Amino acid sequence: MTPNLHDAPIGVFDSGLGGLTVAREIMRNLPAERIVYFGDTARVPYGSKSKNIIVRYSRQIVRFLKTQEIKAIVIACNTATALAFDEVANEAGMPVIGVVEPGARVAVQTTRNKNVGVIATRATIHTGAYTNAICSLDPEINVIEQACPMLVPLVEEGWIHDRITDEIIMRYLDDLLAHGIDTLILGCTHYPLLRSAIRKLVGDQVALINPAYETARELERLLSAEHLESTVPIAPGEPYPYRFYVSDDPQKFTDFANSILPVDVKNAKIIPIEEF
Amino acid sequence: MTPNLHDAPIGVFDSGLGGLTVAREIMRNLPAERIVYFGDTARVPYGSKSKNIIVRYSRQIVRFLKTQEIKAIVIACNTATALAFDEVANEAGMPVIGVVEPGARVAVQTTRNKNVGVIATRATIHTGAYTNAICSLDPEINVIEQACPMLVPLVEEGWIHDRITDEIIMRYLDDLLAHGIDTLILGCTHYPLLRSAIRKLVGDQVALINPAYETARELERLLSAEHLESTVPIAPGEPYPYRFYVSDDPQKFTDFANSILPVDVKNAKIIPIEEF
Repeated sequence: MTPNLHDAPIGVFDSGLGGLTVAREIMRNLPAERIVYFGDTARVPYGSKSKNIIVRYSRQIVRFLKTQEIKAIVIACNTATALAFDEVANEAGMPVIGVVEPGARVAVQTTRNKNVGVIATRATIHTGAYTNAICSLDPEINVIEQACPMLVPLVEEGWIHDRITDEIIMRYLDDLLAHGIDTLILGCTHYPLLRSAIRKLVGDQVALINPAYETARELERLLSAEHLESTVPIAPGEPYPYRFYVSDDPQKFTDFANSILPVDVKNAKIIPIEEF
Repeated sequence: MTPNLHDAPIGVFDSGLGGLTVAREIMRNLPAERIVYFGDTARVPYGSKSKNIIVRYSRQIVRFLKTQEIKAIVIACNTATALAFDEVANEAGMPVIGVVEPGARVAVQTTRNKNVGVIATRATIHTGAYTNAICSLDPEINVIEQACPMLVPLVEEGWIHDRITDEIIMRYLDDLLAHGIDTLILGCTHYPLLRSAIRKLVGDQVALINPAYETARELERLLSAEHLESTVPIAPGEPYPYRFYVSDDPQKFTDFANSILPVDVKNAKIIPIEEF
């Protein structure tokens, strides 16, 4: 390994904006790491699409990220992790982590009554990926999954603190709460943006698991285990320690990034992703 | 022109399922016409994306439809009509109609107080296509446009008759009603599926314009003017007078098609649309 590789960026990708919540946790918790982020804004969302399509799109993104001399890949999208993790790992030829395993592991450590709820997109729920990941760690845990297709559009509409959003969240959570869950995995990268609304509705007795945060911690362990940690902290004024690429007009992406990231995102470049 | 061309199918396309409401009106009103329908289910929705992307996707679809020996094209998608009509017409080299002009024309004929409302996707509203089309026919008409990004997800979630949906519709329509509109264009092909909910909320004094129906009538006039009407009625038992193609897993598409079309849709074929 060249010393250079330690200071190479982490490739992070998502179907669009949601994965920025994962990038945010990496920035906060691994401040020496550089990032190349790709958001597939031309083909968003993935959550209602099939495995074949999600695998094809994810592999194209990995091929693009590999042109950026990255040292590891974070699949910052629950749907792509649930449906395409193995194919991404095969294509990547470098360390890859997704958001499902880290979220599942913390849920297993957190639950006391062994009733865990999962909310996610329809595609993620359809795979049963969270149930599989949790039960392989503790087969006694009862996992109740719920697809919540309206939550991403609500976040993208900006109705974060809104009576209608509260009502829709309650409709989705009713059944999970009736099952007595004490732990709830926010299994889509948009959902942490609804965290305070969800907290208000479920009360203090239900632990909310944000896989974005857990994924950043998992990335830290992985880089350490593989001796890939950054050796050169990001210097003030270093050009582009965080680079952003998208597949459609970057304006909405840049606005959203600037509203949630601790850094100023000046521009994002458009990539013709279907050519990769 | 070969006699054959009269009996060639009409190419109809949309970003996904919504354009089936246009196909339905063509089946009902032009029962002798054959149809090849393409729904871009791998890249749906278009309504939140940029002109560049919508033009690129629409041209790929036209290139696919041209392999199907069609005689005319209907852009059964408000967003693609508003953002890519000229580019589609250039690519097609055959008669093309969209859904915006027919809807605008009937709204102009219908309004009495010259206050017309338009609801549509964010991308369609952003172009001002309906305002332009209406004002070019009657510059005295006051057009009030409203983007309604939540309505397509609500329809796709199946919450058609639902208190939450009513509340969201009212939020979007409040301002239009305050302007005293007497005519409302349902400017997205999903919205006619919410027609009864909208009717209940706006009362009998507001005329609802469904561009799908108007587009079928416009297609009839166009075929007649171009001497392209079908000369051979669809025979009972004729194989595949209606053919359906999609870019992702057809199951959801087929289920939806069977719920709204007057014919039985047995299968839809997947096309790798990005190769066109």
